[in-house]
Amino acid sequence: MILVGLDPGLGCTGWGAIAAEGNRLRHIANGQVRTDAKMPLPQRLVVLHDALAEILAAHAPAGAAVEEVFVNENPQSTLKLGQARGVVLLAAARRGIAVGEYAPSLVKKAVVGTGGAAKEQVRAMVARLLPGAAIAGADAADALAVAITHAHHLASRNRGFAA
Amino acid sequence: MILVGLDPGLGCTGWGAIAAEGNRLRHIANGQVRTDAKMPLPQRLVVLHDALAEILAAHAPAGAAVEEVFVNENPQSTLKLGQARGVVLLAAARRGIAVGEYAPSLVKKAVVGTGGAAKEQVRAMVARLLPGAAIAGADAADALAVAITHAHHLASRNRGFAA
Repeated sequence: MILVGLDPGLGCTGWGAIAAEGNRLRHIANGQVRTDAKMPLPQRLVVLHDALAEILAAHAPAGAAVEEVFVNENPQSTLKLGQARGVVLLAAARRGIAVGEYAPSLVKKAVVGTGGAAKEQVRAMVARLLPGAAIAGADAADALAVAITHAHHLASRNRGFAA
Repeated sequence: MILVGLDPGLGCTGWGAIAAEGNRLRHIANGQVRTDAKMPLPQRLVVLHDALAEILAAHAPAGAAVEEVFVNENPQSTLKLGQARGVVLLAAARRGIAVGEYAPSLVKKAVVGTGGAAKEQVRAMVARLLPGAAIAGADAADALAVAITHAHHLASRNRGFAA
């Protein structure tokens, strides 16, 4: 089963595709979609949406996942993030892909084992859990972490445990 | 020239189409797109995007406009608004429609004549400026106000004045 993790952002959206068979995970691909800050916002959203649509078409995931947003930045950043997140979620829903949503602490717990792990620990564990993956950057690593979380969640659900 | 004003919101998005010939305005249509809060967010964004895409296809506007967002609500509302706004802007850009953006004070000034006008004054003036229009609700009225602002802006630009 192929799962995609998404880390939406207007300037840079990370994505990562993994194959999950029960608890066994394999890296498939990851990357970052950048949009040009000099372009008008609506065009940037088209670039982002279409890139994501292409990635989802190429990997045909059975599921996707994003992190829940706990808003603590400045409101203009939240608005930008929201606009990017909107078109990313649209691209997934448009293909009929259900999107799971996980609290950041849950992602840390799934990847590192503790909900209070630092971002760097999460990224290091992603590289270890997916050996051989050339990770495109921090946002791609975060996206892979969400994909791993989703895989764990589905695997434990299939074994009859709560996530 | 047909212009569309848009007032994005996740629960309710207002839209209004007008015909503008210089300073003469005529109401064409207006409405509100609602999404069901019981649906998953990605599906709500699909409903919103597709409804807007249909409206834009039906009226084939030469231009569109939205209000600038001055964020003062709670961050979760801003995130929701951002997600809705993202797919609304996407629907317009997807059809090659340039989207103007106007500060709320500029909309009030264009419609009522003073940047400090109350929302109710704006809505009353919209009804007066577009006689015969059956206005679907407050969000549709706000959308029509933005469309009127866009028409004024384009007309004054064509006469060589700044907006």
